[in-house]
Amino acid sequence: MKHLLLLFTLFATLASCDQSTPKKSIKVSNKVELEDAISNAQSGTEIIMTNGEWSDIQIKFTGSGTEDQPIVLRAETPGQVIIQGQSDLKLAGEYLVVDGLYFTNGASPSNTVIQFAIDSKTFANHCRVTNCVILDFNKAQRNMTDLWVQFRGRYNQLDHCYLEGKANRGPTVRIDLEGNQSIKNYHQINHNYFGPRPPKGGPSAETIQIGNSGTSMSPSHTLIANNLFDRCNGEVEIISSKSNFNEFRNNVFYKSQGSLVTRHGNYCIVDGNYFIGDDDSPEVGGVRLIGTGHSVTNNYFYNLRGEIFRAPLAMMNGIRRPAVNRYFQVTDVVVAYNTWVNCTSPWQFGVGSNVDQKEVLPASEIRSERPIRTLLANNLIYNGHGDEMPIFRHDSIDGIDFESNLINNQGVDFEGVDGLEVQNFTMKELEENIWVPTSDLPNVEVFNGFEFDKITKDLLGNSRTENHLVGAINDANAPKPNVMDRSLYGPDWYDPNPATVAPSTHVVDTSQELAKAVANAKSGDIVELAAKQYEMNTPLKINKKLTIVSADTASQSTIVYTGSPTTPAFEMNPKAKLILKSVNLEGTGENYAFSSLKENMSSLYNLKVKDVEISNFEYVLKAYKYSFSEFIRFESTVIKNCNNGIELSAEEDDRGDYNAENVSIINCRFEAVDQNVIDYYRGGYDESTVGGNLVVKGSTFINSGSKEKDGVLINTYGIINVEITGNEFLNNKVEFVTRLWGAKNNSESDNTIQNSGKIITEQNLPLKLMY
Amino acid sequence: MKHLLLLFTLFATLASCDQSTPKKSIKVSNKVELEDAISNAQSGTEIIMTNGEWSDIQIKFTGSGTEDQPIVLRAETPGQVIIQGQSDLKLAGEYLVVDGLYFTNGASPSNTVIQFAIDSKTFANHCRVTNCVILDFNKAQRNMTDLWVQFRGRYNQLDHCYLEGKANRGPTVRIDLEGNQSIKNYHQINHNYFGPRPPKGGPSAETIQIGNSGTSMSPSHTLIANNLFDRCNGEVEIISSKSNFNEFRNNVFYKSQGSLVTRHGNYCIVDGNYFIGDDDSPEVGGVRLIGTGHSVTNNYFYNLRGEIFRAPLAMMNGIRRPAVNRYFQVTDVVVAYNTWVNCTSPWQFGVGSNVDQKEVLPASEIRSERPIRTLLANNLIYNGHGDEMPIFRHDSIDGIDFESNLINNQGVDFEGVDGLEVQNFTMKELEENIWVPTSDLPNVEVFNGFEFDKITKDLLGNSRTENHLVGAINDANAPKPNVMDRSLYGPDWYDPNPATVAPSTHVVDTSQELAKAVANAKSGDIVELAAKQYEMNTPLKINKKLTIVSADTASQSTIVYTGSPTTPAFEMNPKAKLILKSVNLEGTGENYAFSSLKENMSSLYNLKVKDVEISNFEYVLKAYKYSFSEFIRFESTVIKNCNNGIELSAEEDDRGDYNAENVSIINCRFEAVDQNVIDYYRGGYDESTVGGNLVVKGSTFINSGSKEKDGVLINTYGIINVEITGNEFLNNKVEFVTRLWGAKNNSESDNTIQNSGKIITEQNLPLKLMY
Repeated sequence: MKHLLLLFTLFATLASCDQSTPKKSIKVSNKVELEDAISNAQSGTEIIMTNGEWSDIQIKFTGSGTEDQPIVLRAETPGQVIIQGQSDLKLAGEYLVVDGLYFTNGASPSNTVIQFAIDSKTFANHCRVTNCVILDFNKAQRNMTDLWVQFRGRYNQLDHCYLEGKANRGPTVRIDLEGNQSIKNYHQINHNYFGPRPPKGGPSAETIQIGNSGTSMSPSHTLIANNLFDRCNGEVEIISSKSNFNEFRNNVFYKSQGSLVTRHGNYCIVDGNYFIGDDDSPEVGGVRLIGTGHSVTNNYFYNLRGEIFRAPLAMMNGIRRPAVNRYFQVTDVVVAYNTWVNCTSPWQFGVGSNVDQKEVLPASEIRSERPIRTLLANNLIYNGHGDEMPIFRHDSIDGIDFESNLINNQGVDFEGVDGLEVQNFTMKELEENIWVPTSDLPNVEVFNGFEFDKITKDLLGNSRTENHLVGAINDANAPKPNVMDRSLYGPDWYDPNPATVAPSTHVVDTSQELAKAVANAKSGDIVELAAKQYEMNTPLKINKKLTIVSADTASQSTIVYTGSPTTPAFEMNPKAKLILKSVNLEGTGENYAFSSLKENMSSLYNLKVKDVEISNFEYVLKAYKYSFSEFIRFESTVIKNCNNGIELSAEEDDRGDYNAENVSIINCRFEAVDQNVIDYYRGGYDESTVGGNLVVKGSTFINSGSKEKDGVLINTYGIINVEITGNEFLNNKVEFVTRLWGAKNNSESDNTIQNSGKIITEQNLPLKLMY
Repeated sequence: MKHLLLLFTLFATLASCDQSTPKKSIKVSNKVELEDAISNAQSGTEIIMTNGEWSDIQIKFTGSGTEDQPIVLRAETPGQVIIQGQSDLKLAGEYLVVDGLYFTNGASPSNTVIQFAIDSKTFANHCRVTNCVILDFNKAQRNMTDLWVQFRGRYNQLDHCYLEGKANRGPTVRIDLEGNQSIKNYHQINHNYFGPRPPKGGPSAETIQIGNSGTSMSPSHTLIANNLFDRCNGEVEIISSKSNFNEFRNNVFYKSQGSLVTRHGNYCIVDGNYFIGDDDSPEVGGVRLIGTGHSVTNNYFYNLRGEIFRAPLAMMNGIRRPAVNRYFQVTDVVVAYNTWVNCTSPWQFGVGSNVDQKEVLPASEIRSERPIRTLLANNLIYNGHGDEMPIFRHDSIDGIDFESNLINNQGVDFEGVDGLEVQNFTMKELEENIWVPTSDLPNVEVFNGFEFDKITKDLLGNSRTENHLVGAINDANAPKPNVMDRSLYGPDWYDPNPATVAPSTHVVDTSQELAKAVANAKSGDIVELAAKQYEMNTPLKINKKLTIVSADTASQSTIVYTGSPTTPAFEMNPKAKLILKSVNLEGTGENYAFSSLKENMSSLYNLKVKDVEISNFEYVLKAYKYSFSEFIRFESTVIKNCNNGIELSAEEDDRGDYNAENVSIINCRFEAVDQNVIDYYRGGYDESTVGGNLVVKGSTFINSGSKEKDGVLINTYGIINVEITGNEFLNNKVEFVTRLWGAKNNSESDNTIQNSGKIITEQNLPLKLMY
């Protein structure tokens, strides 16, 4: 509704202008016409791109409109002008509007899909991109960098757009500040729907980045407001604010595995945002603070399980006299009138403290400077189940002043602090995920900090002059905010969650039928193996969601793969989501069971293998460089007589990248796997990376590792989260079963080891510095 | 006149307020009455301190006035309320005014003389100190740190004050930004007269410092306007801007040995200032730029000889990814519409480039990043005598854009640049030091850079919409600005340059008379030695300007000093300026000819020795730690049979301090001086220090250095400017005559060396890092 109202206002404005100067509309249907129309456009001109597919088109939209009479480039019908292939859009000039374009099935041939600049000196000002979609417009590999939207100049706007699926390196949206023409920019990014961004498996996958460390002293004044961030999982920072005076207001962060981070720059305002977590994810975070003078007010944090860097409130330690690209101390920060409901260890202070790593890190990397001159006041914590550590002290909190904060911890004891009072009050669910205080929350003496008189409204827009409730909401009888109403965000013509079609089942009797079914199935379909055996001599290309399963799980079918050496039985393409279940898989000893593409992995793949017996392969799974998988799971599966096991170590540049986010090995049996039984690697000292994740549980490793060159059976070098539990290791000729990283979240328990080397834990790993 | 007008306006305003609320005036004459009056003061109260000496008084002036009705604390008669002894003043509250106080003959017992705060949390806002004087209000030694005026809070003002003579460590005025209460402060420092500040001989002697590196990311918005800086020589930075958005407008920097430096922080405005140099001083500088987004417009630079760091325009190289307290790269800087008249190498770029010192410095100290995205446009250079190098390239200038600049270099060739056009135009003297273009300066096509439309006025306030002259002045027929009219600056009741009294001559015949004359003479007097010989057994205490000379210079008098070991014949006290001429001076072999006090050297001393024969002392001159001399000159003087010579090496903390600024040894003879013949030391890697200065010329050194422990006859370790020329070194048993520092301004020429070791030049000295 709001969106419609806004559009109406825009058109009303345009219409009223018509009265003085008749608006000129030009319909264009090809590149030449478009360029011609652009070059002749004047204030008030509307260029209409006809519906259809516009392929390999690089649009340079330049011109000078006026505030009342912009030059508009719009789709004939919003969403029906498809920009595809090698295409991009650049804008430069004044008062230009782009409306209704749909970028999909392609990628930018340049560094940006949409750029508010033509070149490094010619920028857009007062220009707007609205009502557009960019979907999966990815370059061929994740190491190839681009931006989907790059801001330069001043007073530009991105609103009511939908952006989903960026898988390659580079923030989805970036505001650049180099040059005086781009500071004090007052750009607005509002009412957009940022759809899912898969994890990238390494840095440089923010959804929005504002500036960089080199311009972090510049005033930006960018406003990010009223957007929905839905599962924006790219990396540890959803929004990376790297400049000054930015404002983040009324956004919804929904189950997004990362945080809003004031990474560089200072004096940002984080007001009235919702951070909604997920019981199943320890990676959904809240606000992480670095630097000076930030104000965090009226925010609502719900059900967050993020840890340390991804804590609901993570206030970091800084470095003494930091380099401009490292961690500044938190000083003069105010956190007031926020609410945390059912979050685990919501307040974490001194995050990143690493004084104990002086031996392996240079002084310029030691985060020893804890927050000072910092205030937490009038905040509310409610835990439905008591939390043993609502305040997590990674370092002393003597530089922080706590005033008039309340907590209901259901009577569970914890190490408290003056200024956080324990009280019994109740909360009620106003709408899904949103809990508000009931009338038993007392009208207390709220703390009146410096300039608190400027906090005039609460999260829902209620005045703070009446009532005096701590927490984000000042009215126990507030109406529903409808924060998850999708119509509030993005273009109204695009549905990011269309109704799903029921899957079909394809029963196949022969190798030919199997190959054909895999090729022709719709995403989500099931292929049932009815025959006893299938001999395949070329790879099955998996590029969609597909389940392959024996018809009779009690008597499994066998796929014998006779393809040439180094080819895989299952070729995992971008967007492959393969479930292989209750099947036997046999190779020639020289080929592979599964592998990614060698290049052009423009998006990730997932693989789940259950109740499968895999034998006689050179590799069980080989991940090539630049490939990435979010989920790899082997369950109740036997792997035997293979030269190599699961190989996820092709990212060897030591720049923080890795080949898989989550790897689970559950109740499996590895027998006579000669080397690289599990080889999972992440290199480079990037303290903010919180992946990958490896669970090895209830599995047996026997007579394996006999050719292992580095003497380690399960190699997890650089992986942050590792759990090795309840396994048996029998007669493996290695020096170490595994070497764990004690300083990170690596653990082992209940393992039985016989004649198999040992498990060691090293506190600190020597890693290559990335910065 | 302006000042009077302003005062009139103030009183008129106050008077008009009286009509609604009668102003309450309270006269106080002691501390109890004062404190009582302060504690009872309300809006509009005027507290009048009675004339006289107020000793050892610590005033805490607190209260809440209003904009219309401030609370005023004023002198009964401006300048006749003398604050002396251990005294200070602290203000906190709103709308307080302090008017007419005279701080002299004392020092602060705290860290400040005047502080806009009571403690670390209680600040002043909208408070004003006006019409006051702080004169020589120094702590006992230069290593004892204080500030004369410390700003905290917001919207405070220091105006029409006179401050002279700070000799101890610490900026004269400092604005502090720690805490949100002190950012965006909009303080004003205007119409003050900053009288001479002597060189300190080391860092931390700025006249004004705004912030520090730790708060350099904070917005300050301090305005420094219409002040006179008269010989503010404390250190290399007259004003050290270390925060953002500060403005420096219409100030006059007169023969001040330093620069206006944007040391940290960014986006400062330097507009309409006068920098007036001195033919005799290579230390009077202009503007030195570090960082981002500064704007330097409409400034006038005259007769500046400052070199490198003190160049008329010094644009520095930065460090790659600098630590917050080191050198940031110059980016996005605009230098437009300025005029340089008769300056030597006025434009210096890449200042501080030290890539060639990679061997002796860590990477974090290498200034390799040259200015980028930087514009010099519409500037004017006029040289009465052609300059061989008006553009001094310390590194490549490929990141700088030059547009529409003009130079008249009197036909002398130089390495130019596109965008700096050579033209013949003339200039005329409008008033002393101020030269303006004549009508033959063409109305050229001035360059229209980004936001140049905001440069609406020239240096003199003329509009830039008519005429289009490059340079600071847009009108060839401008009226005189009268920049050196002292009545424009400081309080009108104080005369910083009173008429001097003619010196008296005291003829003395006996030792007693000599001692008495020295004790009783007025500063500037002459003591004439009429007798052949004077035997003194206690030191002559020198604490003023004094000349001691033989009545008959053809037949010199002798002073035999028989005082106890380690005592000096002449005890150099603070403010001593001794000229000793045509006298013989003999010691016992165990006492000293000259020395400073061992402690409490609250100000500097000077010493000139000419036509003197000095013999038989343990030390000729011994400078104790924390003592400092601006000028030491030995001329046509014989020094013989002494154990030590001139010892200026007591500052051994390696923090950049040293014992003497200028040391000259001219046409002297050193014979049988066993060690430390000249020992002059400065320790610590402080790249911005440009002292001390040593000249050794036309002198003979014979049979000296026989007990020298470090094997160097003339030790100049760490001294920046050294000239050793035309001397004879005969039969000195040392390894080196001297070791020079090639990377700095050390040179030797025309020296004759026989049987005396050698002179070596080392390019880079290993120095202790200070930061």
